[in-house]
Amino acid sequence: MAQIPRLFIRTALHEGAEITLDRDHAHYLFGVMRRGLGDPVELFNGQDGAWRATVSEAGKRGGVLTAEEQVAPQRMPPDLWLLFAPIKKARTDFIVEKAAEMGAARICPVQTDFTNAERIRQDRLQAHAVEAAEQCGGTYVPEVTDLVPLSRMLDDWPAGRRLLFCDEALAGEVRDLPAERGPWAILIGPEGGFSDAERARLRGMDGAHAISLGPRILRADTAAVAAMTLWQSALGDWT
Amino acid sequence: MAQIPRLFIRTALHEGAEITLDRDHAHYLFGVMRRGLGDPVELFNGQDGAWRATVSEAGKRGGVLTAEEQVAPQRMPPDLWLLFAPIKKARTDFIVEKAAEMGAARICPVQTDFTNAERIRQDRLQAHAVEAAEQCGGTYVPEVTDLVPLSRMLDDWPAGRRLLFCDEALAGEVRDLPAERGPWAILIGPEGGFSDAERARLRGMDGAHAISLGPRILRADTAAVAAMTLWQSALGDWT
Repeated sequence: MAQIPRLFIRTALHEGAEITLDRDHAHYLFGVMRRGLGDPVELFNGQDGAWRATVSEAGKRGGVLTAEEQVAPQRMPPDLWLLFAPIKKARTDFIVEKAAEMGAARICPVQTDFTNAERIRQDRLQAHAVEAAEQCGGTYVPEVTDLVPLSRMLDDWPAGRRLLFCDEALAGEVRDLPAERGPWAILIGPEGGFSDAERARLRGMDGAHAISLGPRILRADTAAVAAMTLWQSALGDWT
Repeated sequence: MAQIPRLFIRTALHEGAEITLDRDHAHYLFGVMRRGLGDPVELFNGQDGAWRATVSEAGKRGGVLTAEEQVAPQRMPPDLWLLFAPIKKARTDFIVEKAAEMGAARICPVQTDFTNAERIRQDRLQAHAVEAAEQCGGTYVPEVTDLVPLSRMLDDWPAGRRLLFCDEALAGEVRDLPAERGPWAILIGPEGGFSDAERARLRGMDGAHAISLGPRILRADTAAVAAMTLWQSALGDWT
């Protein structure tokens, strides 16, 4: 059974909609995936659910798909942001991919006192989020924001958004998530942990909540998946 | 603050124990990490806890460490096996690394009906588990077993060991973990999922329990971390 390719596109989807493929999508569908006229493709745009479409024109540098039928309703993720401190390139890519799979609504790279990265390739990370959404069967792609200092983000912190942070100093202590629905963010520290100043500020914040992720030190990408699992299974769309 | 290197060794640790380094460890400590005489190193062997040692001889192809003081007690993980179907090389490496970080006691690659891999490099995977244990501050290295068919493993399934498997067909359905402590295993399917025959067999097994990992399809490495998080926080050593 050949898998039906899934593509995220940026145009409206409705019955009979004709979607003009850009060069990258045409290369992927016809070159990499070897699809041709009449073959099925699944499309989503983050708003109109998932649609079955078929290839109505195929060329080396372009093509056209025609949308036929909605096959899944639009499903928005819970209002959860994932804040993380970018680390080595491969791990950063993994964190973005995993945040998209796990159903983050927004992915925010932040500079902490112990973050190495001075800049990120936002476009590349956004492309990873798109690819993960295509792969995981979702109908939504989280926005990847530009790198900003954590301190500035906390200065402008939105009223009412709770913040879950993973505090290695708590190892072994049990802390349950408060049963508070609504907007949340998860903050994953860099490999060197938070600075004392950052930890003090986080602990003093209204609506901030520290949890432990067990007695072993988790790499940042592992910690991101673990923290999102706890949140999704207690407060998110896994329940 | 320079980080103290951690090494897993295979000899006994006690006060005054002299540990002869093999070539790989000597290269890592003196070549890569640039350590020298008198520098501290942390050692563990899976039995005697973590020990502070210092470099008492350093050479290009060898060296000696002297153990001085136990700095952490031996900590065994809960009796949890992680069974997974090996996929692409990089993802397989990640699963082993994450299973060690998350505190699996044993890591078992299994061949399922839809597994691609015919064989694995057990020694390479075991080395990944060692490296992850060194990195995550643990005192235990899970054994990575050889690849065996899932069906054979189920034929010989140990009495009393419960089995948690992640069933994509359950997406959206809530299934809490039963509050049953004791030996467990988590089974992560391959990217193509389980075959109908496998799913039927798993569902009919005594002590087998299906859970959902949310409405999106998770890659196998993400699913492994998510399932181990649910288990560790409910029944393992995070509580």
